[in-house]
Amino acid sequence: MAEDFKVTPWEVTGDIDYDVLMKRFGTTPIDEAMIKRIAKYGEVHPMLRRGIFYSHRDLGWLLDEYDKGNRFYLYTGRGPSGNTHLGHMMPWIFNKWVQDTFKVKMIFQMTDDEKFLFKDLTLHDTRDMAYENALDFVALGFDPDNTKIIVDTENIDRLYPIALRVAKKVTFSTAKDVFGFEGSSNIGKIFFTTLESAPAFLPSEIEGRPTPVVVPCGIDQDPHFRVTRDVAPGLGYPKPSMLYCKMCPSLNGGDKMSSSDEMATIYTTDTPKQVKKKVGRAFTGGCVSVEEQREKGGNPEVCAVFKYNYYLFEHDDAKLNEMAEKCRNGEILCGECKVALTSKINVFLEAHQAKREEAKEIVQKMAFDGFKW
Amino acid sequence: MAEDFKVTPWEVTGDIDYDVLMKRFGTTPIDEAMIKRIAKYGEVHPMLRRGIFYSHRDLGWLLDEYDKGNRFYLYTGRGPSGNTHLGHMMPWIFNKWVQDTFKVKMIFQMTDDEKFLFKDLTLHDTRDMAYENALDFVALGFDPDNTKIIVDTENIDRLYPIALRVAKKVTFSTAKDVFGFEGSSNIGKIFFTTLESAPAFLPSEIEGRPTPVVVPCGIDQDPHFRVTRDVAPGLGYPKPSMLYCKMCPSLNGGDKMSSSDEMATIYTTDTPKQVKKKVGRAFTGGCVSVEEQREKGGNPEVCAVFKYNYYLFEHDDAKLNEMAEKCRNGEILCGECKVALTSKINVFLEAHQAKREEAKEIVQKMAFDGFKW
Repeated sequence: MAEDFKVTPWEVTGDIDYDVLMKRFGTTPIDEAMIKRIAKYGEVHPMLRRGIFYSHRDLGWLLDEYDKGNRFYLYTGRGPSGNTHLGHMMPWIFNKWVQDTFKVKMIFQMTDDEKFLFKDLTLHDTRDMAYENALDFVALGFDPDNTKIIVDTENIDRLYPIALRVAKKVTFSTAKDVFGFEGSSNIGKIFFTTLESAPAFLPSEIEGRPTPVVVPCGIDQDPHFRVTRDVAPGLGYPKPSMLYCKMCPSLNGGDKMSSSDEMATIYTTDTPKQVKKKVGRAFTGGCVSVEEQREKGGNPEVCAVFKYNYYLFEHDDAKLNEMAEKCRNGEILCGECKVALTSKINVFLEAHQAKREEAKEIVQKMAFDGFKW
Repeated sequence: MAEDFKVTPWEVTGDIDYDVLMKRFGTTPIDEAMIKRIAKYGEVHPMLRRGIFYSHRDLGWLLDEYDKGNRFYLYTGRGPSGNTHLGHMMPWIFNKWVQDTFKVKMIFQMTDDEKFLFKDLTLHDTRDMAYENALDFVALGFDPDNTKIIVDTENIDRLYPIALRVAKKVTFSTAKDVFGFEGSSNIGKIFFTTLESAPAFLPSEIEGRPTPVVVPCGIDQDPHFRVTRDVAPGLGYPKPSMLYCKMCPSLNGGDKMSSSDEMATIYTTDTPKQVKKKVGRAFTGGCVSVEEQREKGGNPEVCAVFKYNYYLFEHDDAKLNEMAEKCRNGEILCGECKVALTSKINVFLEAHQAKREEAKEIVQKMAFDGFKW
């Protein structure tokens, strides 16, 4: 049953076995030796220590180049199909850490074309969402002098010539094998992967020399980057290195926070009351009665509230372990954990929402080629 | 054997039966009634009278709209894969007549992306060729105030949002059926048709209201426009009307002038000496000996030299008929016809080459959205 799940850029179903997925995709685990190496550059981010960013491609090569003075670009993105939730923010938070630690330039891509092609949305919808999502990205404090936001339909003049060169090297058979397209797939979907490849090669175009790139993102994006990496040498670009994270879990206990279950999803614009209500309904590892839980203890392994601390809200390992221990011993009850998490999320969101307002002033500065929102 | 030919936007093989092709594509003949109607707007162009522009889609509707005051745009284009030859110029000459007769705006598209994707050429190659080809187009004297040249990679910002909307409505199965793509086709080829659709809808975008468009072009382009017309209503645009011409014959007697046989192809930059040499080698309908021809006469039906007069260089029907008659009677010999045609072509090219030089000053003014060459 471990194989009974599906992870593509557009669909995640079933219980994901991340080790099986890594083998399926052929990516490399981020092991202790790699984490030790990363520690030389700065304090290791909890998402690395905790195996949330857990797999990579050619990360060692990227660091070798960095050590030689060949500074990389960061590249990640977002498909703007709705409001930003914490699951979207998770890899961005990690990207911010990479930018701060390595002092590197960053490209953030908004694939408004993708979401138009794959969802029942207009280009107007996806453009508006790109703006709203960008505010959340900017609010995380990326360096405005070294970060550029690309919106596909706005910056297509820069992306299209690269996308064409990628397209010429990818056959329909390959796209079909990698993404599972069918006869009924629209021809925009089939071409789209070239637009996700393009920003990986843009730094080499900007710098006028082969420039390393690392893409920290959800492992569901690996199909795109398998294609990107396959075509890179033939186009004279370095293969982008990859840093893959697991999906941010849902409050309902599922593997992926998703807008398809709004009550199990914390949006960046949620009010304290909404957060309280959503966390209050979260799936936990508790027992049916207080008495039973006091006696038998809870199970943090399956608890969405614990996972939120693990993934995002408790960076202190000692405190996290204590939390798990107390749960297992029956010393704390689900209600207490929910109150504590609600408070942490609301503290985070209050500050984020203020920065999100400030972002409205900054976002234009980050627009690639100075496009107008 | 009438079916033993193939006409696609990228390949023309076998002896084309244009009546069969019209039935195969489902287009409508331009009949006497239609030519009479066109005569109301001005002198009917020889290419219409002589059945070179011989088939259409919704031309009656276009004229109805014109009569109501709903002026159409002209749209045609060129895939810049090499130097311009007379076969490319033929439909442009007709477009110029349409612009002059109906006093309408025109969009001319350079599909440099297409030629990159379908040929062994770089984007740099196809861009350079787009410029060279544009000089020939401009030299024909299109109204600089009402004519805009689009180069796909330069004006992709305007075309891409329309192309995406087209792409969302075209499945791979449709593209495969219409164009014959295979698993080995690159994914750029599969997407490309959306870029040829986009300029048909651009006038409606520019004018802010549904705007009729007519596309006079080779009938080999019909597959693209079947797709374009199929998706138009769903996108809120009028279906473009079509005016289709036969392929310009080759000097070697074949159905299509093509750069694959350079000696049978007159380029716009050819010298008088080159033209003389090429016409001198042309396939004719003559007999093996002068004596035999004087006695039996020649066959203008199969003669490339006669066809060049018919298609391009003798607008006077009486003179053309006299030419055919004298050939059949053995009154004139192939050598004489060749000398006469060489002279006509060289007179045309001398003037054209001068206007082509002047075009270097004008072409920038016609660049859509003011891109730089």
